Amino acid sequence: MTQKIQIGKLAMLVASLTPDELEPFMPALGEVSYCQGKAGSMEVQKVIAAVETAAKRNGIIKENVYRETHALYHAILESLEGVMRGQLGVGNMMRTVGLRFAIVRGEPYEHEKEGEWIAVAFYGTIGAPVKGLEHETFGLGINHI
Amino acid sequence: MTQKIQIGKLAMLVASLTPDELEPFMPALGEVSYCQGKAGSMEVQKVIAAVETAAKRNGIIKENVYRETHALYHAILESLEGVMRGQLGVGNMMRTVGLRFAIVRGEPYEHEKEGEWIAVAFYGTIGAPVKGLEHETFGLGINHI
Amino acid sequence: MTQKIQIGKLAMLVASLTPDELEPFMPALGEVSYCQGKAGSMEVQKVIAAVETAAKRNGIIKENVYRETHALYHAILESLEGVMRGQLGVGNMMRTVGLRFAIVRGEPYEHEKEGEWIAVAFYGTIGAPVKGLEHETFGLGINHI
Amino acid sequence: MTQKIQIGKLAMLVASLTPDELEPFMPALGEVSYCQGKAGSMEVQKVIAAVETAAKRNGIIKENVYRETHALYHAILESLEGVMRGQLGVGNMMRTVGLRFAIVRGEPYEHEKEGEWIAVAFYGTIGAPVKGLEHETFGLGINHI
Amino acid sequence: MTQKIQIGKLAMLVASLTPDELEPFMPALGEVSYCQGKAGSMEVQKVIAAVETAAKRNGIIKENVYRETHALYHAILESLEGVMRGQLGVGNMMRTVGLRFAIVRGEPYEHEKEGEWIAVAFYGTIGAPVKGLEHETFGLGINHI
Amino acid sequence: MTQKIQIGKLAMLVASLTPDELEPFMPALGEVSYCQGKAGSMEVQKVIAAVETAAKRNGIIKENVYRETHALYHAILESLEGVMRGQLGVGNMMRTVGLRFAIVRGEPYEHEKEGEWIAVAFYGTIGAPVKGLEHETFGLGINHI
Repeated sequence: MTQKIQIGKLAMLVASLTPDELEPFMPALGEVSYCQGKAGSMEVQKVIAAVETAAKRNGIIKENVYRETHALYHAILESLEGVMRGQLGVGNMMRTVGLRFAIVRGEPYEHEKEGEWIAVAFYGTIGAPVKGLEHETFGLGINHI
Repeated sequence: MTQKIQIGKLAMLVASLTPDELEPFMPALGEVSYCQGKAGSMEVQKVIAAVETAAKRNGIIKENVYRETHALYHAILESLEGVMRGQLGVGNMMRTVGLRFAIVRGEPYEHEKEGEWIAVAFYGTIGAPVKGLEHETFGLGINHI
Repeated sequence: MTQKIQIGKLAMLVASLTPDELEPFMPALGEVSYCQGKAGSMEVQKVIAAVETAAKRNGIIKENVYRETHALYHAILESLEGVMRGQLGVGNMMRTVGLRFAIVRGEPYEHEKEGEWIAVAFYGTIGAPVKGLEHETFGLGINHI
Repeated sequence: MTQKIQIGKLAMLVASLTPDELEPFMPALGEVSYCQGKAGSMEVQKVIAAVETAAKRNGIIKENVYRETHALYHAILESLEGVMRGQLGVGNMMRTVGLRFAIVRGEPYEHEKEGEWIAVAFYGTIGAPVKGLEHETFGLGINHI
Repeated sequence: MTQKIQIGKLAMLVASLTPDELEPFMPALGEVSYCQGKAGSMEVQKVIAAVETAAKRNGIIKENVYRETHALYHAILESLEGVMRGQLGVGNMMRTVGLRFAIVRGEPYEHEKEGEWIAVAFYGTIGAPVKGLEHETFGLGINHI
Repeated sequence: MTQKIQIGKLAMLVASLTPDELEPFMPALGEVSYCQGKAGSMEVQKVIAAVETAAKRNGIIKENVYRETHALYHAILESLEGVMRGQLGVGNMMRTVGLRFAIVRGEPYEHEKEGEWIAVAFYGTIGAPVKGLEHETFGLGINHI
């Protein structure tokens, strides 16, 4: 079994590149369903809610099927581990974040039995609640769905 | 203060793009010093060692200055938090990783007083110690140096 | 030294079984002091408070002795680690919980020098703040008192 | 949507009850597929391996489908968080464990779209590597599969 | 390279000793810049803010240079790990703290290339939000600046 | 209830001060039982073992009473959280430590019902496995016994 589509890499690119920079990757993006959005908050739960809402609004996951919400939720949490680097709880840490996120759903593996997987990527800045006192941060989470 | 160079984004691109895909970003890479390498191991310490060795061999950090080793070490740890998503200790978790990493050192901020910062990015696969039973993983860590 | 009473197992049973299912275990429960209660909240501290209050109201621990509060507190925290599986901070994670808890105090070991120990078990559901979007969760913490 | 089968509770009972105590729950167990086994080790990876092997040998998960291994793996990790209470890495902590585990796979929800889920429960003792210097420990992890 | 000044030990002493007890260490303190303060709160972010404010008011770090805020912030976080012992998020844990903190900045190493480092120490009590139901707690964090 | 003896502060002083510096604190140390020792290892379990052995050899805890081993063990773990600052697993992190530790047992509270408590403090250096590439580290753990 090998991967034919790298949904994680695609999610990272959608979250961090400019439209021009993303141009060369549009063909690959044509093979998956994806969406993007923004989240800026001191509170983890608002960041999670922003991603869950975007995923449902854009039909990436089915709103009334728990297993899909469950799969997405854990992909978001894993991605946030990267963003927070072991300090989940943004507000609690007095850090503020300005994030762009991307959600990619597709079939990464050749073997069709592997079915669909979902990737959630965050890219942006994290730092003190003062403009400029911040650096880049990134996270990626992947789960079967 | 705004960021003129996104060393974190550059590190992620160097770690995950093919030479062709990276082409458009060479001008930006001309403004920083960077290197890349590979690490595949069940043991976190070997992954850390691989990055530290590459950084010193390529002159990204000064071998005999502890503050630079200290800055790099914490950037690696933060990046690995993203790779392991809260489960640092690869070997302990029976997961095996196949990673490409990139180290980027530069002056991301306009204000020169902010000096140099270092970014460490990992991209690759993590999974069971069986070919194919794996998915993508990403990590990014940034520190002042 | 061997264990004559499994206070942890008893706490799990009291927290998760129906009165009928619990019937066969009443004799064993006769050898310990225990109580149960409910906690449903988005905030960890309210869950902790619910257990501490129940333990004191039911005389499982002495209200004015810090060492007993300290022993119970750490047993609760360990139990919540199981409930949250490494993500302590319910509210922060946008998860809502509906938990039944049980507190069991007794002398599990034959050797009387081992004295009294306390077990705290949680059983219930955790999930999105939407009815049904949830799955079971469990936790057990044990401490000497 | 409500749960018709509590696979988590069943997993905990299979892991901790004696055959006689388990008798009343056999009807409920008839509606799921499950297996049990033992694991005693200082090393987390051996515990994980023991559960993965049992799940495949007993046909609870398909050996050559990564998404099933991935679902089981994360259910095991979540269960071990409860066992270790935030200190994953048995051997590293000088603790030794003697565990019985149970794996239960079934359709817990009425709504068939929710499909199959898997529960992994551990019950046993954890303590110093000296007979008797130990207390009970429990863990439960649940994931969609 | 050996350390000529132990900024961590000095920070610990300033945070925990009485003025009389500190007397013998005044000469050593003459070789570094330091300040102290108090923080009592249920919320981690207020504790962090108290330290950052004290550091800037006393000129230990430069207010408008992010790299210094970044270095201090991570030293504070590491110190709080010791205070909270893996449970960062005071308020969330229903624990209340009464802390004295000390910030020490100096050149601990003989080799001048190692430059300046910063140490943050906390010492005080942590416990239930009831007077007396508490025990001592301590933390130390060190970072290059 | 107020504390009449600060066993945590005493443990830190015994672990970090020179005999001369410790002189003024001998009277206070006369009211508790304590011991000290050294531990230098890449492996957490060896550090834990060194402290447990010292505690038993010096009669600080009773060798054949599990509740005392249990109380000490958790005090050691909490202290190591401060030493490792959230990265328990020394060897795994490629860090090497050179630590002095102190164990103090006494009755810190005026109210005799509070009984005995135990404090474990570590002080030393942590860093890369290269002489000099290291900085100070501290840890303190307290538990009822």
